[in-house]
Amino acid sequence: MADASEERTTRVRPIRVPDPLWTAYGNVVARRGSNRTEALMEAMRQDIRKNGTDEDKALLDEAERELAERRSRKGGRPRKTE
Amino acid sequence: MADASEERTTRVRPIRVPDPLWTAYGNVVARRGSNRTEALMEAMRQDIRKNGTDEDKALLDEAERELAERRSRKGGRPRKTE
Repeated sequence: MADASEERTTRVRPIRVPDPLWTAYGNVVARRGSNRTEALMEAMRQDIRKNGTDEDKALLDEAERELAERRSRKGGRPRKTE
Repeated sequence: MADASEERTTRVRPIRVPDPLWTAYGNVVARRGSNRTEALMEAMRQDIRKNGTDEDKALLDEAERELAERRSRKGGRPRKTE
């Protein structure tokens, strides 16, 4: 069953992208051992660090905590409290 | 009604992103007059140009032609043949 707390803060976002661009990008990031979602999140992260306001950077910090929690859950040790 | 030929080659792609990251990124790109989809496509484009194979770059060229056609249709002059 989906983790409700995760669903609330990590949503699927739709972006419209031409197929050949999506394919080529998938090829490029796969060669460096990544995937599109990871690579696009890294691009967003770098842009926010470089061009974001303090408020944007605080939101980024919050997102990093969510991602760390998600990774720890995927690691097989779900924690209900923390 | 949706343009079937466009639907076939420009699909909505789902990426899972924490809300605060999505919000902060939206703020950053809005300040430079862009939007998330445009900015993410630009990031993908730059990555492919820098790190793609010839095949990836050919796919990118194909995508650019699709985007140009989409823009021309949005400009109010849909062309059924070309």
